[in-house]
Amino acid sequence: MLFSDITVLDEQFCCQPHQYVATKDSKIVYIGKEKPEGDFGECYDGHNRLLMSGLVNAHSHAAMTLLRGYAENLPLDRWLNERVFPFEDKIQNEDAYYSTMLAVAEMLRTGTTSFTDMYFFSEHVIKAVGESGIKCNFSRAITSFSDCDISGIPSFQESESLVKTYHNAFDGRLKIDMSLHAEYTNRRTVMEQFAESVKAHNLRAHVHLSETEKEHEECKQRHGGLTPTELFQACGVFDVPTTAAHCVWVTERDMDILKEKDVTVATNPASNLKLGSGVCNTAALLGKGVNVALGTDSVASNNNLDMFREMYLCALLPKGFHRRPDIVSERDVLKMATQNGYSAQGRTDCGTVKVGNRADLIVVDLDTVHMCPHNDTVNNLVYAASGEDVLLTMVDGKVLYKDGTYTTIDIEKVKREVELRTKRIQNEVNGNA
Amino acid sequence: MLFSDITVLDEQFCCQPHQYVATKDSKIVYIGKEKPEGDFGECYDGHNRLLMSGLVNAHSHAAMTLLRGYAENLPLDRWLNERVFPFEDKIQNEDAYYSTMLAVAEMLRTGTTSFTDMYFFSEHVIKAVGESGIKCNFSRAITSFSDCDISGIPSFQESESLVKTYHNAFDGRLKIDMSLHAEYTNRRTVMEQFAESVKAHNLRAHVHLSETEKEHEECKQRHGGLTPTELFQACGVFDVPTTAAHCVWVTERDMDILKEKDVTVATNPASNLKLGSGVCNTAALLGKGVNVALGTDSVASNNNLDMFREMYLCALLPKGFHRRPDIVSERDVLKMATQNGYSAQGRTDCGTVKVGNRADLIVVDLDTVHMCPHNDTVNNLVYAASGEDVLLTMVDGKVLYKDGTYTTIDIEKVKREVELRTKRIQNEVNGNA
Repeated sequence: MLFSDITVLDEQFCCQPHQYVATKDSKIVYIGKEKPEGDFGECYDGHNRLLMSGLVNAHSHAAMTLLRGYAENLPLDRWLNERVFPFEDKIQNEDAYYSTMLAVAEMLRTGTTSFTDMYFFSEHVIKAVGESGIKCNFSRAITSFSDCDISGIPSFQESESLVKTYHNAFDGRLKIDMSLHAEYTNRRTVMEQFAESVKAHNLRAHVHLSETEKEHEECKQRHGGLTPTELFQACGVFDVPTTAAHCVWVTERDMDILKEKDVTVATNPASNLKLGSGVCNTAALLGKGVNVALGTDSVASNNNLDMFREMYLCALLPKGFHRRPDIVSERDVLKMATQNGYSAQGRTDCGTVKVGNRADLIVVDLDTVHMCPHNDTVNNLVYAASGEDVLLTMVDGKVLYKDGTYTTIDIEKVKREVELRTKRIQNEVNGNA
Repeated sequence: MLFSDITVLDEQFCCQPHQYVATKDSKIVYIGKEKPEGDFGECYDGHNRLLMSGLVNAHSHAAMTLLRGYAENLPLDRWLNERVFPFEDKIQNEDAYYSTMLAVAEMLRTGTTSFTDMYFFSEHVIKAVGESGIKCNFSRAITSFSDCDISGIPSFQESESLVKTYHNAFDGRLKIDMSLHAEYTNRRTVMEQFAESVKAHNLRAHVHLSETEKEHEECKQRHGGLTPTELFQACGVFDVPTTAAHCVWVTERDMDILKEKDVTVATNPASNLKLGSGVCNTAALLGKGVNVALGTDSVASNNNLDMFREMYLCALLPKGFHRRPDIVSERDVLKMATQNGYSAQGRTDCGTVKVGNRADLIVVDLDTVHMCPHNDTVNNLVYAASGEDVLLTMVDGKVLYKDGTYTTIDIEKVKREVELRTKRIQNEVNGNA
């Protein structure tokens, strides 16, 4: 594709107007003021439009999209036990496939080109990733409630099998990570074996870390005063490239460990607010030089997958919470949502509009009422835009969404299936089946 | 207009599917399961769509829309002195008209049917309200920096003149309120005269109240320990129906006064975060039974006028801030954004879809990816929808926005004028004129 007369958001998050950008196969092959020679297929008129890297949703549970709007206004334990767990218990394989497909459709529609997911129903999530054309680092959550040989744990066995079958599948769009669900759902001896195994396989890890005060404090009681971060470090978990979701309750010393061990923090501002968990101190993490990425968590606690809304929240919250309007800038959050996210996924050739990089690109409409006037387009992008302003989403050079149309997803069928399956599950939960 | 097969969000914020709703002239004349007899003009297919009351933006400065994205990441004093004031100083009359028109277009596009505005350039704001067809309670901000007879203050003279000429103009769409800008911009003697005058004219008041800790604390020093709320009460300001914007720093006792005096609190969650002012305790205010309405403040500190985003923030923030996921429900914020807002404007026949009420209505698309599945449409409306989901906006029975088209606004001209005028002002501020 050849984008003409388009504004490019460059590596430093500055706008370069009136550019030509050409993609060939999966790569960006040209950026410049002059029209390049050669045939690049479709020519896209970029007038009043912005081309930027696709966004990375650094922490999600896509198959939970069936639960949108189902569990609200409840404390975390009641939210889980009275609503989420009984519902999840009724989810069947195909349900997870359609639920993930709906999530992928929403992500593509709002400019997300890659996501880091942790869940079960692995084969069905993977099928949706394969068919849709999006990128994903998927991990099967491992839990252990007694000391044992990790090789006997079914979720670990499944993880190993996924690695063998699917790691780097679909031309590398899919990567399999290993996931230790959380400190409070695992035993220390298993954490140690987990770390050894991920290291041996040369993989990446994905964990939940200090999401709530309760889990953070109870860990210290369980483990001789060690915080979840200190415990994971002691077990060697952080010796592999790790994404740690939430980190709302990490201490100053925890932050130093996360920086030292090069752990990515995937912050989820909406979910942390909605479940009453608190506010992650992203300003302090950024100040220490931690790689902070951005995620939505599942729609059950968000309730959408619009990374533009998440960027907005992520930029606004610290200002109000610390009463410091000068912290966490628009460029900070754009970096979190692009370069930092891709970096956490181990995708070094993605995240910036640069020749030689993968063509994971989105086009944003600059000609809307809420983007006018253009005092500063980058400010508008973070503080005024929404995911609905995305006109085109491309992954590895392939257009997956454009002007309301999906090229790989039968969206009407997906919506219909999701509605039907949600109703079935609701009936089963209520004993009406 | 006759809406057929539409889902109606009723007075209790419950969804009534498959309804017919008819409007005639400016009123709602029929709601029911059966198709009404008679000719209502255009028939609107409401399948997969929701009809609800239009939203009220309870605190704005519409003419500041020229400043979108212009002043970011600065502490309040630098934000005002280095960016906002020098820019505002260059705004001329026609600039304010186009700026307001752009704001109105954004409001209509995102479902706002009425707004409560405080600014200057009154005639130009009023012209935009008149032409666009939106509703507005407008007030000219009064300031006083020395003790004097209020009748000698130009902003008061202008306010009185506006009341004479424009109060209840445009078939009542426009109301003129009186505005005491804030405690810190006025003298006590003038506050007392202001209260007398508003009472005598039988009008409504609009003030800024305890937005920042600084103004709240400095008021106590200036006024023998009285908070801004206590001072306004002592001066009689609250003896008239008043909208008090912000109220981030009000005390428990202040809240009791606001309740006792029936003052509406217009909370502005985005602006309070973005400027580092803090978080308004809406949960406590609601708990005391205060009438809480919702506003965006100006785009200079937001940066858009999407009341759906504001509802989302308003519902999420208290949950995270107080770590109580069970406070401030989706129905609470829907009520704030509709009934409470209209009630604050003194418009008793607006704010609910009810026969006999004014037809200030909006249609929301329920058939989007991010509204699927419909476990609970009301939850989706607050936690997943965005202003972009609004398909139609009607004020007093007249369609002002529908499917990307404005019936009263030449939107391309407005955008063009706003861009040109913004560039001119930027040049003047930078001394390049």
